[in-house]
Amino acid sequence: MAQAAHSAGFEVRNGERRLALDPASMPPDAGLVFIGRVASPWLRREDCPKNIAQARERGAPAEIHVDPAFRDGLDGLAVCSHLVLLTWLDRAPRDLIVQKPRHAEAPRGTFALRSPVRPNPVGLHVCAILSVDVEAGIVAVDAIDVLDATPVIDIKPYFASTDAVAAATRPQDA
Amino acid sequence: MAQAAHSAGFEVRNGERRLALDPASMPPDAGLVFIGRVASPWLRREDCPKNIAQARERGAPAEIHVDPAFRDGLDGLAVCSHLVLLTWLDRAPRDLIVQKPRHAEAPRGTFALRSPVRPNPVGLHVCAILSVDVEAGIVAVDAIDVLDATPVIDIKPYFASTDAVAAATRPQDA
Repeated sequence: MAQAAHSAGFEVRNGERRLALDPASMPPDAGLVFIGRVASPWLRREDCPKNIAQARERGAPAEIHVDPAFRDGLDGLAVCSHLVLLTWLDRAPRDLIVQKPRHAEAPRGTFALRSPVRPNPVGLHVCAILSVDVEAGIVAVDAIDVLDATPVIDIKPYFASTDAVAAATRPQDA
Repeated sequence: MAQAAHSAGFEVRNGERRLALDPASMPPDAGLVFIGRVASPWLRREDCPKNIAQARERGAPAEIHVDPAFRDGLDGLAVCSHLVLLTWLDRAPRDLIVQKPRHAEAPRGTFALRSPVRPNPVGLHVCAILSVDVEAGIVAVDAIDVLDATPVIDIKPYFASTDAVAAATRPQDA
């Protein structure tokens, strides 16, 4: 069995399965550099919305703060209406491969869930762009569903032509 | 100036700007583990579609091969119509922060582009799921726009409710 790598606040539920090796303690195959942090209204896990739709309902905008070295990369983003934010969910454990979400009837594989708990805890968030200040390195967005100070690893322009599949279907309780 | 970290086949064009430090040689802030590889029809960069719409036009399906340790994570994915695949574009340089795409009139920040060249070269691909074989660790998808053997770092179910913004707008030449 893997060592208990679960961070405080993540309980293990019935039917959940752990990886034999915890990705957090495996030799990495590649290295990420953090390009900035999210400035979010959510300071505690119990206050943090479970997804961006919930975040949007609360009507609290957020900011992406980009480190000085990477700010030139924001040039030209302001003409897009939406972005994809990729975060590193650094407070999530990485060793659960089958999970039992509270709302689901049965356990389900991690890659069938949007849980922050995954081998590589990369968060994917589609946000509306409110403003972009390249010099200050600040992108204001309509909502965010991560804790304050969550590291940012990438920002991409959202392209409806390839990213929007309105007809995509999923199980009701996913 | 950073060392010339540009991989063969990536030319530097007018107006492009490099980072002072190449993220590929910086001490990493976090480590990724590869959970599998893409089995793609594209073996050479010159044959690889520039985006997934182009890949789809060529009508060539692809497979995601998941390593044995992570296969249980696929359980339950088959009931979704689409997935988000996150790849590690390991053949892309990481040190260009302003880029001049061939099709664009002016240089633009990396975070306003979907170029594989970025500080953390994470590829984001929305694919239709054709089949899922949990035991064999194989997910067949309708199309893919990465080279064969590209590492996989995450698979997520695609949720139209939060991921599909059909009305998102962008500049014509982005």
